[in-house]
Amino acid sequence: MEFKTSIEVRYSETDAMGIVYHANYLPWFEIARAHLLKEIGFPYTEIEEQGYVAPVLSFNVEYGLPCRYGDKVVVYTTVSKTSPVRTQYSYRVFLEGEDPSTTKPRVVGSSMHCIVDAKTFKPTSMKKTMPELLEAYKRIIADNEKSQEQSLHN
Amino acid sequence: MEFKTSIEVRYSETDAMGIVYHANYLPWFEIARAHLLKEIGFPYTEIEEQGYVAPVLSFNVEYGLPCRYGDKVVVYTTVSKTSPVRTQYSYRVFLEGEDPSTTKPRVVGSSMHCIVDAKTFKPTSMKKTMPELLEAYKRIIADNEKSQEQSLHN
Amino acid sequence: MEFKTSIEVRYSETDAMGIVYHANYLPWFEIARAHLLKEIGFPYTEIEEQGYVAPVLSFNVEYGLPCRYGDKVVVYTTVSKTSPVRTQYSYRVFLEGEDPSTTKPRVVGSSMHCIVDAKTFKPTSMKKTMPELLEAYKRIIADNEKSQEQSLHN
Amino acid sequence: MEFKTSIEVRYSETDAMGIVYHANYLPWFEIARAHLLKEIGFPYTEIEEQGYVAPVLSFNVEYGLPCRYGDKVVVYTTVSKTSPVRTQYSYRVFLEGEDPSTTKPRVVGSSMHCIVDAKTFKPTSMKKTMPELLEAYKRIIADNEKSQEQSLHN
Repeated sequence: MEFKTSIEVRYSETDAMGIVYHANYLPWFEIARAHLLKEIGFPYTEIEEQGYVAPVLSFNVEYGLPCRYGDKVVVYTTVSKTSPVRTQYSYRVFLEGEDPSTTKPRVVGSSMHCIVDAKTFKPTSMKKTMPELLEAYKRIIADNEKSQEQSLHN
Repeated sequence: MEFKTSIEVRYSETDAMGIVYHANYLPWFEIARAHLLKEIGFPYTEIEEQGYVAPVLSFNVEYGLPCRYGDKVVVYTTVSKTSPVRTQYSYRVFLEGEDPSTTKPRVVGSSMHCIVDAKTFKPTSMKKTMPELLEAYKRIIADNEKSQEQSLHN
Repeated sequence: MEFKTSIEVRYSETDAMGIVYHANYLPWFEIARAHLLKEIGFPYTEIEEQGYVAPVLSFNVEYGLPCRYGDKVVVYTTVSKTSPVRTQYSYRVFLEGEDPSTTKPRVVGSSMHCIVDAKTFKPTSMKKTMPELLEAYKRIIADNEKSQEQSLHN
Repeated sequence: MEFKTSIEVRYSETDAMGIVYHANYLPWFEIARAHLLKEIGFPYTEIEEQGYVAPVLSFNVEYGLPCRYGDKVVVYTTVSKTSPVRTQYSYRVFLEGEDPSTTKPRVVGSSMHCIVDAKTFKPTSMKKTMPELLEAYKRIIADNEKSQEQSLHN
């Protein structure tokens, strides 16, 4: 269960090497995350309205072939791990039209997040604050495991 | 009465033309503004602590020769106009070592600001909220006018 | 003849005031410009392939009501002036769904550009290098003048 | 052998959470890297002049307590691994005045880089292209290992 988010490279995202500056993939992943949350019924603005924010605890990115101005990319995003207190998202960046089953992604990444109180920045347990979001995350992970098993059996 | 702020071009500020992306001069001007405020005794963080922020009302920038990665620049900043409700800052960007009296600046800019309540974004009059800041602004402008007169008489 | 470009506010574009940081409107205008160029048959990537780039000579922006994370905006863009050596674009930012004929734009801006040789940064005359682009610009301006006359007569 | 780089948080680096946006630490690490290279006699601009660039292959960042506008930070940087074809830098971010031997860093990160031909982006071996840089990297690593041994013996 991967979510696809389309993004066009902005000129402001390039650097003097002529390619997308490495830090500028992180906002793309943020857009992809927000897109996933919206798709599963928990728009980030609603999470904020409830008094929470979801800061980044850690980030890993591996850079392959660079993206350039004029490129249209698709970010494939999923939830790869979750517990009541932290959730890991994973990302794979392809050029539009590339087949993710046969092409190496341009960039892969993963990030860990928690839900904190917007005022105190104190971490919360989704079990208490957002049990339905936790369930939605678990369904995505279960669905991914199922797909993986099936593809192993084929 | 101009205030000098030194800045080193960051790689992240360049674009695929190999030069500093035009929008990335605006944060430099912000740093220069904060520097001026600090020098005259009104650090921006203290303005914030008093419950105010100073959003940008308008911006003008003229771009001459570009800056590049590796360049060290100096932003010359002053207050060019003020009333109790709005203040104009002016900026001139030179490469380090360039003589501002004989060299054309790389970039010139000006911006208009007001002081608003941080929560309501309602504009305030500095006469009431920050009379000393208003006086400090006026002194800079008076000082600039004096210098200009003197240079005209020479 | 205005061109409409839709943009969703990115979290990375906000600042500690909780609003879109003022410099971050400039990349939106760049996207709007690229969109206009594509619509009239001169994608910016093709201009680059021919060995030219179109740096910014100057920028003016006036900020009204702020945009925030979660907002979807529409940038209305047109060509407001041109000569063979320089072209002015104009921009108006509205929230999605706002009626531009009855609503004050959130932000308005204009920028001046020239076409330069990508290697030497020497300005060129569109009359020689891109006569068809110059004609397309003139048609937009003529069309705008016509619309304005008509609305004055009504 | 750690190199210290001072950085003041820019307003443009904050986001609507009121803290430094997570992607904006990466440009700080780039500045720290450039500083280290300059200190050991290999300014990045000279590497570029020789026809090479040093793209990022991967990045890991762990975020602890956030940094805010007004904070002055110090990035402690070192070279943690190297081979002729790839080099790992490590970073630790502290607030100015914090003692790195007794304080938990705000943010830690590491990044892997290679030296590629600026035109073809083909990776090169430092053994051939920059043997003295490779030796300088090795000296830093040897020095770090020595310090670590000594602190273990104490």
